[in-house]
This record gives sequence, C-alpha cells and structure tokens, in this order.
Amino acid sequence: MDWNPGEVDDDLPTRWNGWGDPRRATPLPRAVRALLPLLLGRLRRPEPAVDLEDVRLPSSSLTEDDLAALVAAIGADGIDDTDEGRIRHSGGRSTPDLLRARQRIQEAPDAVAHPSTHDDVRALLDVASERRIAVIPFGGGTSVVGALRPERGGRRAVISLDTRRLSGLLRFDELSGEAVFGAGTTGPDAESLLAAHGHELGHYPQSFRYATIGGFAAARSSGQNSAGNGRFDGMVTGIRVATPTGDLDLGRAPGSAAGPDLTRLFLGSEGTLGVITEVRVRVHPIPRERIFEAWTFPDFATGADALRRVAQHGTGPTVIRLSDESETAVSLAQVGRIGRLLSRGASAVTVFEGDDAAHRRERTAELLRAVGGESSGEGDAAEWLRGRFDGPYLRDALLDAGVFCETLETATTWSNLPVLKRAIEGALKKGFGDADARSYVMCHVSHVYPTGASLYFTVLAGIRGDQLAVWGRVKAMVNDAIIATGGTISHHHGVGRDHAPWLADEIGDTGLRILRAVKHELDPRGILNPGALLVHSSEV
Amino acid sequence: MDWNPGEVDDDLPTRWNGWGDPRRATPLPRAVRALLPLLLGRLRRPEPAVDLEDVRLPSSSLTEDDLAALVAAIGADGIDDTDEGRIRHSGGRSTPDLLRARQRIQEAPDAVAHPSTHDDVRALLDVASERRIAVIPFGGGTSVVGALRPERGGRRAVISLDTRRLSGLLRFDELSGEAVFGAGTTGPDAESLLAAHGHELGHYPQSFRYATIGGFAAARSSGQNSAGNGRFDGMVTGIRVATPTGDLDLGRAPGSAAGPDLTRLFLGSEGTLGVITEVRVRVHPIPRERIFEAWTFPDFATGADALRRVAQHGTGPTVIRLSDESETAVSLAQVGRIGRLLSRGASAVTVFEGDDAAHRRERTAELLRAVGGESSGEGDAAEWLRGRFDGPYLRDALLDAGVFCETLETATTWSNLPVLKRAIEGALKKGFGDADARSYVMCHVSHVYPTGASLYFTVLAGIRGDQLAVWGRVKAMVNDAIIATGGTISHHHGVGRDHAPWLADEIGDTGLRILRAVKHELDPRGILNPGALLVHSSEV
Repeated sequence: MDWNPGEVDDDLPTRWNGWGDPRRATPLPRAVRALLPLLLGRLRRPEPAVDLEDVRLPSSSLTEDDLAALVAAIGADGIDDTDEGRIRHSGGRSTPDLLRARQRIQEAPDAVAHPSTHDDVRALLDVASERRIAVIPFGGGTSVVGALRPERGGRRAVISLDTRRLSGLLRFDELSGEAVFGAGTTGPDAESLLAAHGHELGHYPQSFRYATIGGFAAARSSGQNSAGNGRFDGMVTGIRVATPTGDLDLGRAPGSAAGPDLTRLFLGSEGTLGVITEVRVRVHPIPRERIFEAWTFPDFATGADALRRVAQHGTGPTVIRLSDESETAVSLAQVGRIGRLLSRGASAVTVFEGDDAAHRRERTAELLRAVGGESSGEGDAAEWLRGRFDGPYLRDALLDAGVFCETLETATTWSNLPVLKRAIEGALKKGFGDADARSYVMCHVSHVYPTGASLYFTVLAGIRGDQLAVWGRVKAMVNDAIIATGGTISHHHGVGRDHAPWLADEIGDTGLRILRAVKHELDPRGILNPGALLVHSSEV
Repeated sequence: MDWNPGEVDDDLPTRWNGWGDPRRATPLPRAVRALLPLLLGRLRRPEPAVDLEDVRLPSSSLTEDDLAALVAAIGADGIDDTDEGRIRHSGGRSTPDLLRARQRIQEAPDAVAHPSTHDDVRALLDVASERRIAVIPFGGGTSVVGALRPERGGRRAVISLDTRRLSGLLRFDELSGEAVFGAGTTGPDAESLLAAHGHELGHYPQSFRYATIGGFAAARSSGQNSAGNGRFDGMVTGIRVATPTGDLDLGRAPGSAAGPDLTRLFLGSEGTLGVITEVRVRVHPIPRERIFEAWTFPDFATGADALRRVAQHGTGPTVIRLSDESETAVSLAQVGRIGRLLSRGASAVTVFEGDDAAHRRERTAELLRAVGGESSGEGDAAEWLRGRFDGPYLRDALLDAGVFCETLETATTWSNLPVLKRAIEGALKKGFGDADARSYVMCHVSHVYPTGASLYFTVLAGIRGDQLAVWGRVKAMVNDAIIATGGTISHHHGVGRDHAPWLADEIGDTGLRILRAVKHELDPRGILNPGALLVHSSEV
C-alpha cells in the first residue's frame, strides 16, 4: 500500500472556494444522500456558490507608491495585485472561510507578495514596517482557524506573503538524518525530494497535499503518524526566521541547555512574530515494512483504555486511532463506506513500520486483545489509508447539499478524556438545540501520548438560519466548555483569529503579556498577522 | 541491582565546600596517586582549605527594615542571615566555585529565604521588587556554571531563595501517569514518593542525590537514562511559576497547538524570569526487568558510529554511553577501577528496562556487533552503575591533592561529532600548553539523539600557577572552539554566569533581545538572578 498520497499536479490551480484538486470534487455519494434526512431532517436549499469572476472586492488600499516600493524590494514578478490572486489569498479552509467564499462581496488582501529568498522576505518586511502595511504569511492556505483572514488591524493596508517560492531541499545530512527545507515546500514535494535519498519525513496531517513545511512549524501541526513520528514540533531541529527587526538562526544541537529553546517560541507563533523561511527537520530512511490492522472494541471507553495502554507501554505503532460509536456507525472516516450503517462498537486502525514492525504489532495486539479488542484484519485499515486525505472533498459536497459540516479538536489527560468528551458533546447539543438545528456528532482519537490524547470531532448539522451566525454561537459554547473542563483550545489546528479570544484562558494574563512583549520587541509596528493569536493587536 | 542510589540522610548537612555526604569523602585511591605524576608531572602542594568558621564575609547589605519586611512576608523562621546559612548558599559545585570556597575571604548572599508555599514566593518577590533586592533561586545548589554566584547586579542587596521547603508530591494521577511535585523536592525524595505508588520518574543526572525537580526544569537537565526516558524538558508536562509581576500555570494538555509552548520559555530560564514553584511530570510504573551489558569497541569512532545506529534505529536502550580511548584507559567513569591502565579501545555501557528489555537488548546487540563491538558482559556495566554518582567525591580528593579537575560538555550532529571533539581537545591542549600545565583529557558520549549526541569531557591538569585564572583562559578558548565548530555552549549544564558571554553566539542578537524583552516584562526591576543567562543585566 502506498503511504505517500502524493500525485499533486503543481500546474493545476487548486479550487479557489473549496478543497484541493478540482478534478477530485465529487457529488455526495447516494448512500449519504439517503442517510442525511434521517440524521438531520429536512435540509434547506443552499444559495448557489458565486463564480470567481463575479466576486466583488474592495479596491486595493495600496498606493502606486506602495506598489512601487514592494516591486523595488522583490521585483515585479513577485507582486500580484490581480483580483484572482487576492481572492485566492483571502482565507483558509475552515467551513466559515468556505461559506464566506460563496458570497458575492468578499474581503481580500490588497496584494500578494511572492518572495523567492530569505533576503526577499527581509526586504518586504522592511517596506511593510516603514509603510505600516500588515503582512499575513501564507503557506498552503489550509488554515482552519481563521489565521489567514485579511485583517489589517489598524494598519494602512494588508498584503499576503506567499511562501511557495521559498521551496526546495536546501541541505541534506544523511549521517545525521537532517534535512533543511525552504519554508514553502509542500508536504508531497518534501517527501519526494527526500525519497530521492531513500528518506522520509513521515508527517501526514490531513492538509498534507497542500500545506507547507513552514506552515507545519508555524502552526504546531500534528500528523496521522504522530504515534510513531511525533508532532511536527518534535521533528524540527532548527529554523531560520526573518522578523521586522532582525533575523534568527536557531537550533545549534540535537539537545541543549543553552537557555530556553527559542525555536519553541516560533513554533505556534502563526506568523505573528516573524516569517519562518527555512526549517531543519529530523528525517529517517523509508521503512521497508508496513503492517496495517483494524480493530473493533465494544465501545469507545474500552477502546480509549486500550489506546492508553499502548501509549504508556510504548509498544510502537506508527498510527493508532479510534473512532467513537457515532463515527464508527457512519464510517465517515472511511469515505468509501459512508452510509453503511452496519458497524457497531468503536473501530480502530493501527499501522506499524520498520524492521521490527511484526514484533511491535504483536505486542500491541496483546494489549488490545487483553481489554476486549478484536482484530478485523487489514481491510478496514487499508480503506482508511486510501481515504484519509479526502474528508475535505466530502465536506464540499455536503456544503453544496446545504449541510453544515465542520471539525474541531482538543486534547487532555487520559483521566479527563471522558469528562471532556461529554462536555463538548453537551455543548454542541445545547448549541444546535438553541438554534433548532438537528445535528450528528462524531469523534475520534488520533494522537496519543503517555499522559493523554487528542479528541477530534466532526459535526454535521441542518442549520436553517444563518450558518455562520449559528456556528459562531455554537463554537463559542464549545470553546467555553473545553476551557471549563481542562482541555486545550487546540491540539493541532492552532489559534488563528477563531480561537484567539480563548488564549487568555489557556495561558493566563501573564502568558499573554509574554507573547505581547516578544511581539513588541520583534515587530514594534505590529505589522505581522494582526489579530491572529493575540486579539486587539492594534494595541501592541 | 538497585537503580535508585537513594540513601541520602536529610538530617545530615552536606559538605559546605565539597560534594555531598561528608561521610563519603575519601582520600585519593593509591593507584590514582601512583598514576597522577605519570600523567601530569610534579604537582604543586595546594593551600589547605579554610574551615567554615574562619571564612570572612562582607557584612550583610540588608537593613533592619529590609529584614523586617522579609520576615513579615514569610515569617521569622523563613529568613536566615547567619554566616553559615549565607556561606552554604554562596555558590554551586563547579570547580571554580569549590576553589573559591577554599579561600578565607568570600562573597555570599546577604540572607537566605526559605519560603514554604507558592504564596510565600510571591510575597518575597513583592518585597524584593519594591526594595530592589536581587533574588537568586537556589534548589540543591549543584550548579556547575556559576548560576548561584551572589551577584547583585547593581541592586541594593542579594538574597538566596532556597526552594527546599517547597517540596513533596502534591498530586498523583495514576491513570494519566502524571505527578505534580513541589519544586524543591530532591531527586531521591521524588523517587521514593513515587515508589510508594509503584512509579518512577527515572531522571538520574550526576547531581541526582541533591538537585531538585525545580532545578532540573530551570536548568534543562538531562540524566543518565536519557536514551530511554528523554531529557527532563520532555518529562515536564506543566509548571507553576511566580514572577515579580504575575503568576503562570502552564501546560493544559499532553499536546497542544494553542500558540507557542510557553513552558519551554521557563525550562532553561535559570531563575532569571521567575521562580518555578511546582512541576508536573510524566511518570511510569517501575520497570520489572533490567538488563546491564558492557561493550568494547576498537576505537571511539567505531563506537560512536554504533551509538548512532542505535539512536537512529530506535532499538530502545534506557542507557547507552561510550567512553573514548583516554577515558577507557583510566576507567575514570568507573571509580572502582581507577588506575588499572589495562583497558584498550573504547568501552560502552548499555542498560535495558521493561517487559520488552530482552528483545530490545538483542536488537541493539545486533547493531553493535555489526560494526565490531564485543560484549564484555554485565560486570563492567554493574560497576558503572555503582560508581555513577561518585565522580564529584573523587574530584574533591583530586583538588585536595593539588590536581585541577573539571568537566565540560556540548552536543552536535553525528556528522559534526568528530570535528567538534578534535576542536575541543585542540583548544584544551593549546590552553594548558600556554600555561605550561600538563593535562589529561577524557571524553564520553552519554546522551544520544537520532540526529546527534553529547560530548562530555573530564579534564585533569597540573596547574602550577593560579588555577582559577588559568582555567578561566582555557575555558574561554574551549567555548570559542565550540561556537566556531558548531556545537552548543551547553548540552545539560546550562548557561549560568560562566557561559553567559557566549549566549549571543548561540542564539544571536535577536535571540538575546527576545530574552531581555521577556525578562523586562516579567521582572522590570531586574531582581531575578542578575548576570545569570544574560550578561549586563543591570542594563535591563
């Protein structure tokens, strides 16, 4: 089975108001169409999406003089102020972003800059600082937390800084297992550059096909192979950063006690403290062996207990994930099986890699069987593998059918996991109930740690009123519940603008003061991604 | 074999001018005495060490009013301004610290505060901020980088804040494998509190018997079991911190993307940004099985290549360490064998723990044998285990005999490891040569990562002139060589005052500006450990 889903045609523009490859856009499978009214009742007929050429943008706030200065900094072919370029950089891929992309009148950055080198980025930041132009770093454009919304935060104008030309494998140290990538290298490009050396990075978030190495770092990404390969934070061994007031080249050694690890201050900074231009990562030889095995547990609680044992015994799966009863029932995680309302209990997927895969599979299987898990063989796991990047295509089809569909995620300790799950389900039920909307909520665990795990929810709802307004209220109730119940406001999606109001609850006022102090030091004019991560950035 | 060396008598005061338990102070073994003249030539007869009661301190800079305010903050039994209390908090345990402790006239903090609660710490910081009194957080007092030297950095006075009363197991979550300790809990106390629950932390730096959990966090410690249990950074899942301007309670989840991980800003902050009062750590059940095995390689280069393969294949030793030819020859790492100039090649120690220990040992052994390693059985590994915390006692005996003895350490990538080792050996040779001092330099690798490893040097020298002055010059040459050759200025000892002048080379001017900005935000009067980590803190 092929692990790297690659096959991205770089020459083909991605969908501007939906996910990814336009050739992969599919209508809703018939079985799903049959199922939806049963789950959600009668659905409203959605407004048809607007065509690209019919979108109306505010005229650019950049003066001729601004444009000339930007062109002087990085060359004319580096600056794009066409409507299409602006629209394509006007947001990420959250459901609210996609709903806004269906409207006729939209917001957009005033231009898009395409720097090709670290020094280009430096020059852009100099121009932007001097002219009080906000700058929103943009990798693959897959943010689902509003990190790319074109807010200018009191600045004169706002430009998108697209990192895609900062790409490629810049250095490769086979003996040390380290590779340096330009920040704009996409997931598939990084893997194919490494594959030429027999190596892989092994970081596969759902956004893999389009997201960039720099984005993985800036947003603290975590991928489907996190059980074996860890979070992206842990893969990063160094970064190069351009800030409005100076450069950084961090990460001198695999382990260090030379003061606080400042690399960690930029992982998760979401473009608010600087622009990451290069990332050094730990890589490893491509594993020769891979074993896939699916499991079924009587219920989610039992399955979660089994995953805890695996994480705490360190038996070494590369992937381990568990769907709750609702998700198992509709097999939404396995697109090919949608609508088969056959499955009972809670289904899980495990994958093992490397020379020692068979041994680790056996040790893991012992633990899973001991609490009541039953192996269901390779088939379901292979199906998960094939469909695992396709959820966003299904969401487009659901939105086209008038179904609201969104995801949210958090993490907590093992002992708090069931409490947090119930609290979130309760908040969703109450929120949608208040709006008189029927909903269907599914959950899975896909990232495990010795001390706890993530919870990832997929929500379907039949919202009859204003979907953006209703979801805004529901999401706020969920965030409040997460904070009240000890979860983190995000396990791997990030903060962006959508979670920023809850960051104070997560890190406290003193924590916010630290971030603001660092931002003020590096970006005294507050040009970098205003309003993301830190609310009220105009006060900075 | 007993892993936890425990057996610390809390009621017995430790040596004030040497290491640890006074009952363990031993004269130099006869074999070593015979060997030293061969290695170092004729030694100078050292000045006899001064007695505690003969030490002269400057009179305290604290006014009666200051003392009254400190007593009002935390109670009379929390403030100690006796000469003995001050002397015992006047430094750490680097060789320069110990040489200064042999002198008649010494520097010392003006008083020692013993807070019992987080709120005590808050109250102390309020008094100190208001009165411009510098505060030096003090855990076990085992710093070897000058982090505890009583500099006031332009403040009116300086007090030591001893965390030892902030001790104990505050919370234990068995299901999640998490424990919260008061920052002043020592290594042995933490392990015995956990052992009562069948759990362990498994962090064993050489300072284990005396150092504290808070100190491990503040200084980014790494222990002898780091191959299996990781650095202390990675064990920390949360911290509580008191700063002069507010509190922090960080670490809501086992994994998070809620902005930068601010916990990491305090790991390595060495008491300059706040006082860590509680630490939440990942713990695990005490392994039932342990396997010890020693190895011999033809030379250090071959052994290092073997360790690299083990780290990159992840075959899972808990301990793996390799001595170079010089260290193997005198077996200094194995105190019991000192002087046996029999060993050739490069010796290594491996330890495996847990249910799967035998399997992991076999996989590791395959890799070690493949490059030419030969198993030498359990004996030498057991000997290492018994003596592994006793190096500092031997140093005391060497200092008494007039031999200069000190350690230094760094880390780098696997590909740069031999280059860095040669550069450091060259700097040491040149430095001691310039001072006309004969020296003997030994090195081992004791912390491995997939991308690189640490290098730990032990230096013996027959310095005829001023030991402090000569070592100051030699150490500066070594630090310059480390920076020039791509190493980190410290892998696990920290920065303190001794490495602070090189921090700019490590993290750059922009990195220093970040740390200063955070310090200024949290500690605007610059009372916390002035001169540690950041030089010229009086400018803050």
